[in-house]
Amino acid sequence: MPTTRLLIEYDGTDFRGWQVQPAGPTIQGTVEAALATALRAPVAVVGSGRTDAGVHARGQVAHFVTDAAPDAHRLRAALNGLLPPAVAVLAVEPAPDGFHARFDARRRRYTYQATTEPRALDRRTRALFRPAPDVDAMNRAAETLLGCHEFSSFCRTKSETTNRVCTVETARWVPGARAGDWDFEIAADRFLHGMVRAVVGTLVEVGRGRRPADDLARVLGARDRRAAGPAAPALGLVLERVDYAEPAFAAPPAAP
Amino acid sequence: MPTTRLLIEYDGTDFRGWQVQPAGPTIQGTVEAALATALRAPVAVVGSGRTDAGVHARGQVAHFVTDAAPDAHRLRAALNGLLPPAVAVLAVEPAPDGFHARFDARRRRYTYQATTEPRALDRRTRALFRPAPDVDAMNRAAETLLGCHEFSSFCRTKSETTNRVCTVETARWVPGARAGDWDFEIAADRFLHGMVRAVVGTLVEVGRGRRPADDLARVLGARDRRAAGPAAPALGLVLERVDYAEPAFAAPPAAP
Repeated sequence: MPTTRLLIEYDGTDFRGWQVQPAGPTIQGTVEAALATALRAPVAVVGSGRTDAGVHARGQVAHFVTDAAPDAHRLRAALNGLLPPAVAVLAVEPAPDGFHARFDARRRRYTYQATTEPRALDRRTRALFRPAPDVDAMNRAAETLLGCHEFSSFCRTKSETTNRVCTVETARWVPGARAGDWDFEIAADRFLHGMVRAVVGTLVEVGRGRRPADDLARVLGARDRRAAGPAAPALGLVLERVDYAEPAFAAPPAAP
Repeated sequence: MPTTRLLIEYDGTDFRGWQVQPAGPTIQGTVEAALATALRAPVAVVGSGRTDAGVHARGQVAHFVTDAAPDAHRLRAALNGLLPPAVAVLAVEPAPDGFHARFDARRRRYTYQATTEPRALDRRTRALFRPAPDVDAMNRAAETLLGCHEFSSFCRTKSETTNRVCTVETARWVPGARAGDWDFEIAADRFLHGMVRAVVGTLVEVGRGRRPADDLARVLGARDRRAAGPAAPALGLVLERVDYAEPAFAAPPAAP
């Protein structure tokens, strides 16, 4: 059956997360409704992973299956005309038969956007951390996360996921474009529920001097969510990109 | 009398512009209300210039006069606690006696933020121009604006400003951080009402092939607003910076 994949950007502020919920708008439900109108048939959309309420994406990937392959170019235009402004379909393309946005994903990349200065224009996507934490200490602590570890201490307690092992490739704070802005880049083969926000909340405690930079090894070893710090606010978290074994989605259209 | 100046960032989406109006919230009114609470006395705030309804700022400058000089550090913290999240005071500092945010300004810099791709996260601050205009043609046309000209053709007809002469130092489209994003950077000693939006709307007509790139000289010469194109949407316009003869506001706090 023809499989199509979507590259989706969204402002999660006013949504109850990716996954369809009994109450409140979700990204998945919004995309499914637009697809049903565009394709004149109900369509189930599978995302690469759930994002929590209030979390954003610049590169969520989702797939769906139809009886006949839709015209990708037209579908993108139709979807962007139907979707609310907070959800944009950046790209639509045919996927290989059997492609699965979640099971085939090899790597997810998130950014946690923070700032130490008051911000008006970025207030929906950048968390204010004041007083300014010690970023060098946070980066020393973040190195502990690199590699293959059991991440139960950073997984929401109510999560039903039994495999809590993740391989983290990148975990570092880098300066943002404006002075006072800091972006935490984290990439892993998979993430557990609430993992990035728990990691960031714990690192900020290190940056505030409430934990030593070498505390993260102990936290990982505890395999207990209570050993880690509080979840950082959802509004700073952005799903940047999902990578597959084969390159998905051509480079974004070049500047004219 | 002690004069204090403010560096202000705002998301203009939900405001009726800078200047106090009979109805609807304005940035000036919002800042004056916060200052009155913080200083326990009514204070009149003078901005470097008005911005229209829906226009944003990363670097609006305003001043006010008080009987006693306030503590700048404390006042910044107090204002950011009182202001709505869409308005942030980036810096507060004592200004030289007699400093006037508007009359002393030597140069204003604006960016008009556009994109040729659908956007969700930037939808409040970046105008969608589809199909993609020819940016090279727009840049050739923009060169005509450089230097000292009479800009009546780009001034709102109901404006009461009699001096319509502006000296434009910079007027060019540069690629933004994401493919498909374009920023129009324009700097001048002064701007007339609606000038940047009229310039952008006219350049987009050039980029769409509806006007030749060398049409701007004719438009300037006409001294008639009807000779120019329509105003581009307010949401893409950002007041970036105001320069004075003396440097105002130290560099933003360095990253820790």
